Amino acid sequence: MPEPDFDKRGGLVPAIAQDAASGKILMVAYMNREAWRHTLATGKATYWSTSRNALWMKGETSGHVQHVRELLVDCDADAVVLRVEQVGGVACHQGYESCFFRRVEGGEWREIAERLKEPREH
Amino acid sequence: MPEPDFDKRGGLVPAIAQDAASGKILMVAYMNREAWRHTLATGKATYWSTSRNALWMKGETSGHVQHVRELLVDCDADAVVLRVEQVGGVACHQGYESCFFRRVEGGEWREIAERLKEPREH
Repeated sequence: MPEPDFDKRGGLVPAIAQDAASGKILMVAYMNREAWRHTLATGKATYWSTSRNALWMKGETSGHVQHVRELLVDCDADAVVLRVEQVGGVACHQGYESCFFRRVEGGEWREIAERLKEPREH
Repeated sequence: MPEPDFDKRGGLVPAIAQDAASGKILMVAYMNREAWRHTLATGKATYWSTSRNALWMKGETSGHVQHVRELLVDCDADAVVLRVEQVGGVACHQGYESCFFRRVEGGEWREIAERLKEPREH
């Protein structure tokens, strides 16, 4: 089974979820070996929560599951991209389609997206 | 000046370079505060090389500079996306447009892109 080089960065690699249809970057999280294998086995994006120190199947409580359409690894095998279909159209716990809803503009953060749903707890 | 929360993850945040025109994810690297400020000041993507432990202005030696068109931060302010114009059309030191040129297919890695240039040293 193909695997990223988890040992290289202490067991975790950054995992970027990208909308498979639009190409929009939805979120960045982390995976360990367990999360990687769970993702491969289920076809649902599963991360390692660095705040809770626990396996985190995205959407387990919110229903905002990410169905994995394509799983890419980079040249150094220490970062992965998940091309996903985002159930509910909302990846961010703050209620936005993407966690990347702010950009630098005129020396400050500017919101560039509309909130689609009420914020949830992490 | 807006800044990500560098302290949260020990001084470094993952930085994802995305082609501003096509939406393709080109590479994942890391930024510290110095790299962030250098990027803002110059408009050229600058990372912190975790292998060399040094500031790394992308393209400084190869010429494959990334002109930053948009700089996004996520909800937790501990990951950034750089929407860039990639000079030379090659982001990966192995000579591919994107570092993500392999995907999981039939239980192994499968190359999904053509090499455009000869590989270089990191």
